[in-house]
Amino acid sequence: MDTIGHHYIVEAAGCDPKVIGDADKIREIFLEAAKRGNMEVKASYFFKFSPMGVSGVVIVAESHISVHTWPEKGYAALDVYTCGEKADPEKAVDYILEQFKAQYAHVSEIKRGIEEDDETFTHTILTWEEKLDRRNGKL
Amino acid sequence: MDTIGHHYIVEAAGCDPKVIGDADKIREIFLEAAKRGNMEVKASYFFKFSPMGVSGVVIVAESHISVHTWPEKGYAALDVYTCGEKADPEKAVDYILEQFKAQYAHVSEIKRGIEEDDETFTHTILTWEEKLDRRNGKL
Repeated sequence: MDTIGHHYIVEAAGCDPKVIGDADKIREIFLEAAKRGNMEVKASYFFKFSPMGVSGVVIVAESHISVHTWPEKGYAALDVYTCGEKADPEKAVDYILEQFKAQYAHVSEIKRGIEEDDETFTHTILTWEEKLDRRNGKL
Repeated sequence: MDTIGHHYIVEAAGCDPKVIGDADKIREIFLEAAKRGNMEVKASYFFKFSPMGVSGVVIVAESHISVHTWPEKGYAALDVYTCGEKADPEKAVDYILEQFKAQYAHVSEIKRGIEEDDETFTHTILTWEEKLDRRNGKL
């Protein structure tokens, strides 16, 4: 089985506190994101902190989506990691950022499980920033 | 609540296929790793693929540990992500690599949730490689 994985590590800022503080809403968004990213959901778990903040994980076949949120800061730490050629993790990331109403994202795309000649494995990292201007309907 | 998180992204190579192919064993290792890393376990989920390979996630207060394994390659893609000052994610990583009998690790430590002046958040990345020579008892 192919070891190559695509792992998106996202710091999402300017998110809607109502959305990222609501565990049920995040579950709904994640399940839809998995569907749009062509992933098969195996299990999900969401946990609400007191007084605020949510941790959530969806286990998808050979991968996972996770989030930890700070609604009081409009901040969410999002991960989408998928293996195999079938899944489209970028679609899931875009959908989640759109639903969180994120205004800004700092993203690293990590290509994982790159096999080397000496039977070791490495990863490569590509980092960028996105300003998500939603006023004009973009993204 | 502090947004700063420490996220270790590890490509572990030369692992013992028996260990990383055994979902129950990985669960046991992860629960002990969480304890050693001073984390509070909220939930865990492990899934065994056919014919081999395991996906596992432990949700810890404000963080998670996850792994996806390819026993036939001796390879495991490990993540340990913790927030707050109390947890010691490095101890958890070291314990897991030791138990997996990994010979080699390519690691990126990502410091997440760094707040900037303009209410955005960023992350920094530090990458290194470790050769884990266990013949003389060194980790």
